[in-house]
Amino acid sequence: MIAGIIGATGYAGAELVRLLAGHPQVDRLVLGSVSFEGDCIERVYPNFLGRVDAPLVKPEEVIAAADAVFAALPSGVGEAFAKICVEKKIPFIDFSADFRFDDDEAVYAAWYGKQYAHPELRQYSVYGLPELNRKRIIAGAAAKQVIIGNPGCYPTGASLGAYPALAKGIAGEGCIIVDSASGVTGGGREPSRSFHYPECADSVSPYKIGAHRHTPEISRNFEAMTAAKSGTGIRPVIFTPHLAPMNRGILSTIYIPLGEAWKSKNRITGAPRPPAKETEEKAEEIRSVYAEFYRDEPFVRILPADTLAATNRVRYSNFCDISVHLDQTGTTLIIATAIDNMVKGAAGQGVQNMNILFGFPETAGLTAIPASF
Amino acid sequence: MIAGIIGATGYAGAELVRLLAGHPQVDRLVLGSVSFEGDCIERVYPNFLGRVDAPLVKPEEVIAAADAVFAALPSGVGEAFAKICVEKKIPFIDFSADFRFDDDEAVYAAWYGKQYAHPELRQYSVYGLPELNRKRIIAGAAAKQVIIGNPGCYPTGASLGAYPALAKGIAGEGCIIVDSASGVTGGGREPSRSFHYPECADSVSPYKIGAHRHTPEISRNFEAMTAAKSGTGIRPVIFTPHLAPMNRGILSTIYIPLGEAWKSKNRITGAPRPPAKETEEKAEEIRSVYAEFYRDEPFVRILPADTLAATNRVRYSNFCDISVHLDQTGTTLIIATAIDNMVKGAAGQGVQNMNILFGFPETAGLTAIPASF
Amino acid sequence: MIAGIIGATGYAGAELVRLLAGHPQVDRLVLGSVSFEGDCIERVYPNFLGRVDAPLVKPEEVIAAADAVFAALPSGVGEAFAKICVEKKIPFIDFSADFRFDDDEAVYAAWYGKQYAHPELRQYSVYGLPELNRKRIIAGAAAKQVIIGNPGCYPTGASLGAYPALAKGIAGEGCIIVDSASGVTGGGREPSRSFHYPECADSVSPYKIGAHRHTPEISRNFEAMTAAKSGTGIRPVIFTPHLAPMNRGILSTIYIPLGEAWKSKNRITGAPRPPAKETEEKAEEIRSVYAEFYRDEPFVRILPADTLAATNRVRYSNFCDISVHLDQTGTTLIIATAIDNMVKGAAGQGVQNMNILFGFPETAGLTAIPASF
Amino acid sequence: MIAGIIGATGYAGAELVRLLAGHPQVDRLVLGSVSFEGDCIERVYPNFLGRVDAPLVKPEEVIAAADAVFAALPSGVGEAFAKICVEKKIPFIDFSADFRFDDDEAVYAAWYGKQYAHPELRQYSVYGLPELNRKRIIAGAAAKQVIIGNPGCYPTGASLGAYPALAKGIAGEGCIIVDSASGVTGGGREPSRSFHYPECADSVSPYKIGAHRHTPEISRNFEAMTAAKSGTGIRPVIFTPHLAPMNRGILSTIYIPLGEAWKSKNRITGAPRPPAKETEEKAEEIRSVYAEFYRDEPFVRILPADTLAATNRVRYSNFCDISVHLDQTGTTLIIATAIDNMVKGAAGQGVQNMNILFGFPETAGLTAIPASF
Repeated sequence: MIAGIIGATGYAGAELVRLLAGHPQVDRLVLGSVSFEGDCIERVYPNFLGRVDAPLVKPEEVIAAADAVFAALPSGVGEAFAKICVEKKIPFIDFSADFRFDDDEAVYAAWYGKQYAHPELRQYSVYGLPELNRKRIIAGAAAKQVIIGNPGCYPTGASLGAYPALAKGIAGEGCIIVDSASGVTGGGREPSRSFHYPECADSVSPYKIGAHRHTPEISRNFEAMTAAKSGTGIRPVIFTPHLAPMNRGILSTIYIPLGEAWKSKNRITGAPRPPAKETEEKAEEIRSVYAEFYRDEPFVRILPADTLAATNRVRYSNFCDISVHLDQTGTTLIIATAIDNMVKGAAGQGVQNMNILFGFPETAGLTAIPASF
Repeated sequence: MIAGIIGATGYAGAELVRLLAGHPQVDRLVLGSVSFEGDCIERVYPNFLGRVDAPLVKPEEVIAAADAVFAALPSGVGEAFAKICVEKKIPFIDFSADFRFDDDEAVYAAWYGKQYAHPELRQYSVYGLPELNRKRIIAGAAAKQVIIGNPGCYPTGASLGAYPALAKGIAGEGCIIVDSASGVTGGGREPSRSFHYPECADSVSPYKIGAHRHTPEISRNFEAMTAAKSGTGIRPVIFTPHLAPMNRGILSTIYIPLGEAWKSKNRITGAPRPPAKETEEKAEEIRSVYAEFYRDEPFVRILPADTLAATNRVRYSNFCDISVHLDQTGTTLIIATAIDNMVKGAAGQGVQNMNILFGFPETAGLTAIPASF
Repeated sequence: MIAGIIGATGYAGAELVRLLAGHPQVDRLVLGSVSFEGDCIERVYPNFLGRVDAPLVKPEEVIAAADAVFAALPSGVGEAFAKICVEKKIPFIDFSADFRFDDDEAVYAAWYGKQYAHPELRQYSVYGLPELNRKRIIAGAAAKQVIIGNPGCYPTGASLGAYPALAKGIAGEGCIIVDSASGVTGGGREPSRSFHYPECADSVSPYKIGAHRHTPEISRNFEAMTAAKSGTGIRPVIFTPHLAPMNRGILSTIYIPLGEAWKSKNRITGAPRPPAKETEEKAEEIRSVYAEFYRDEPFVRILPADTLAATNRVRYSNFCDISVHLDQTGTTLIIATAIDNMVKGAAGQGVQNMNILFGFPETAGLTAIPASF
Repeated sequence: MIAGIIGATGYAGAELVRLLAGHPQVDRLVLGSVSFEGDCIERVYPNFLGRVDAPLVKPEEVIAAADAVFAALPSGVGEAFAKICVEKKIPFIDFSADFRFDDDEAVYAAWYGKQYAHPELRQYSVYGLPELNRKRIIAGAAAKQVIIGNPGCYPTGASLGAYPALAKGIAGEGCIIVDSASGVTGGGREPSRSFHYPECADSVSPYKIGAHRHTPEISRNFEAMTAAKSGTGIRPVIFTPHLAPMNRGILSTIYIPLGEAWKSKNRITGAPRPPAKETEEKAEEIRSVYAEFYRDEPFVRILPADTLAATNRVRYSNFCDISVHLDQTGTTLIIATAIDNMVKGAAGQGVQNMNILFGFPETAGLTAIPASF
């Protein structure tokens, strides 16, 4: 098949190039770039020398040639391309937020400050978190006209971490807190003071507290994942992103109130005590639920009790590592998840979606073994 | 005066050497080391060449010569030295957990796995967080026999961040979550796999979830800071530390349930919305409470609305930077604090305590201006 | 085929596991470890979870099962295993220095402080730099009894950088200076103060100036690569390694005196001037010689004039990137080379040697496309 | 006194603010900025909050108020300000290259592509490397009209490293190679792709090989430092800068051909051998010459034999650390120097020059003790 990328020179685009160039079912890449049209990818990214050798063409040429089109563009830019692809029955995998909210245009508008240019396209769109929506993605493929709203990086790690607890009734009511640290590639390729080496090296800092655009996406996912839906329709979520001095990776620590059935019987009310044996046993029980829940998922790893999620163990891979913990008061489930923000958090998940759409093995092109260091 | 350090070659000890060697009231340092006795500090730490030139002697010689003794030793080792100092009326500033829990030996025993060797010493000990206990520290100085239990690094950042909210009734009931990221110097000087460069570079990972020893110290501080004490005597706390790839600094993000009076009237119940104007005004109001609360504190900085706490802006200084935020649901106060774990989180706070004990200006030796990068 | 690794839990061993587990011709791995015998690799390195699942067995079991044996052991330990493999006609690929010096035991003894245990094994050994010795490696394979002395990391980058200049008579007489910076994985898995995060983060420092063991290996290679050998038999070399705060990679800057024919006619003798057009043309000419020289090499990339060698563009790949420059005085060729010290500098080169020995495509298992970031 | 800074919001300017705000003889700062005029320094750099509180004014206001003026501007911009200051007899300390070449305008023009706007100002200018030119700086102060051409960062580390060898006849004839690695702050405050975190983290790369503007400054210094000047007037120099993933620091490795008297009698001509005892003794002898040469210099530290220059040991200080080595062939002196590029390489050296000009203790405001980590 021929894979096309519109916006191939941004970071998500370049990561797609890397993954698709090594994909066994992809025969050829057609790469589009507005900024570098007429140049070639290995000049913009010399890391590709000798491995990828492709001119950068207009978006229209990408669509004309490709069997599947990836769009790695800012929100609000790609709808016109999506429309053409739907008409031509070419699967369209979109990395912006344009197709993540289905027909909930109000939420999109509130957070992204834009209206949909082509609202009707949402009848073809599926939110592309395979672990949640695999059946819908397959149905989209069958329907021939399909747009994938590839998930945001933070929502991927947060949602996969909470999913079993929500679906299996381990989570009780109340606000879920997602506290995440991201590597600097999350800020994209465009230089700015925030991502200038001397300003972010050797430092950790939060940003956009209570105001990050991924908040509604996380909240909506949590609701969709919950067995018995809440009356209000929406799970309250607090999401705090941090910037950490690393290139890749998102570590999310998720605080989920336990349901009554799962709370400690001997709840500690006085001074905190080190974890009791009961706590460790209960954590192991929940760990088993998680392992069972994700048993057939090729990219989710439930870590053993003595191993905590760490971003360096998933680097350059499509894995989401999950470690399961309980706080010492016996009231709160604490989940830590690690993903590579550019792979499972962006390009890799896009390839996973393509694989599902085309009936390829879901791991095709995504078999990288994470390095030990 | 002559300042003595027992355990001068560990990281906290070496940082004390740096700060005290530049302290205007300190005439001489006497440095003790068991591992390097007979050697000299500038051989162990060549960064001191030309600035500090001192032999490493036995602990007994430190006590014999010094007007104040700092002990930077593991927990459970320093009590014997504390006893001698109390008898000789030499102020003893202890960096271990041995004197942080006052007479609550049960908590200490549960978390540190040890009994007090000399329980009676707690009549002389004060928990050395000056912003909370300055009066008690001064009283200790007046009594001539005084032991300072210098606070842990995480509890310092966590406690200073929550203090005004607890003392001024902004915080409501319920669990407070403290999510922190620490630089690698927090692990000390002894090489190990966890702190081996290739294992922790370019990666973020949590550790000891629900089981870190600083949990009871944070919880106890929160209770002590609360205006109307809770019936149970203890505020439930969840504390999650992370290791981040930086040398110094602790960034703590603290989630505090708002009291009813402070909660948003127009609470959002549906899909999350970007922060409302009301939210920003309320955050500004709380920021003012914080600024007023810490008005006379020389080492606490309340940041303006558009500036978030970042560890690189306090590096090598004794500052605790605090930024004040509200989540978009209007129910939770989110405080971010940044300290240098080796300064305000250890050696600098020790020097601050010494200054108070001796009646020096509280900022003496701690006037470093943080660098911009 | 079945590939065996003795010393699978050190850094070079773990990197071999990663590469061989993804190798299309390798059906199974047999992993040996003395330190972790009885455990399994995915417990020691949890990054392998779900991808590699192998027990750690005794070296003898590795040899008994494998069609090829890799030994990632300290110098002086593996000869006994090599002997058995030669007897059993199993190719033995050794990562220590034991088989890098052929029969020049005096040089080995002087730098490694040991005698050969089985000197007669050198009749079977080949220095495994494929770009230099491919024919000899193939001949070894044909002879059925073969030991590969896999090159050191620094010598690989240094030698590939100088080879065309030496072989094509661009280099004149005189000392060649190799100034290199290595990532911290080069120090191996064992924690020590030198590689303790807080001691080497955010810092560059040389080490073992004029005394590093790779010096004679580099010097010997330079001599072997030289068209008209010098009378003395050995090219004088100065080699200075540095430690740089990165995980992987070696950047070598190599200063080679130009032969008379290549020196600038209009040599600058007064104050330095910016590079003349003539200089740039001559550099381009030499760049062409380099490109031609390595035309058929799958892992050497000669960079275009405006692209300088950088370690991040070869990360996790088996590439050696080379950029070609002239100093402004017109007397010295300056070559910059970048390799991943764990891949082309160790495990990847070992796999490349295995591929040659077994007649696999030379790039089998080594097709990773370097990421852009 | 009142110190003024034109260009206070660039990196060199901000570092000057930090150092001068803590300077015991500086009563007040007047800060100029074109980009941020009307704002205040602690808004642009929140690290200054609570320590420095100063509006950003026009350059003219700086000159009107200050007793000494620092200009941290790009080359070719500050001459007009220098002219006014000379006329008003205000010492002018310039951080650009405009006053580093004395009256050698041809060299300046060739490398910086500009002509002097006011060539006559060079009668007042002194190249401000105190260790070389202290007497001339003092003479300038006496003359009341003085411009300091503050040295470049690379030339500072390179020149201090070679000075004793050149002045004491240890160096022989021939090209000196300076191979340096710099932290990213050297690139300044303006964001660009080269200094974008994901592009330079975890990587080492050379840049501007044979073409860096600091080459003629280094060459000129070497000539000025040489005891018996060469006939040609200029020492050939090869200078290669590298970018390393750290915030601050320059590590320079300098290869100096030994004079005949210093070369090894038993020169090694065959395969390299580990350093002989004779080599170590000779290195110690040269180390003594270096120590004696710099005996009275407050900011140069000659390291003992077992300690190599490392940038983390001079961080935030005005020290230049020097370690002295010989290569194993006995022909070349290898000097490693470490400076903080923003302190001794820029702002700190500027303050040192101010101290000399005003008769303050040379270490005033520069007494920072480097931290151990």
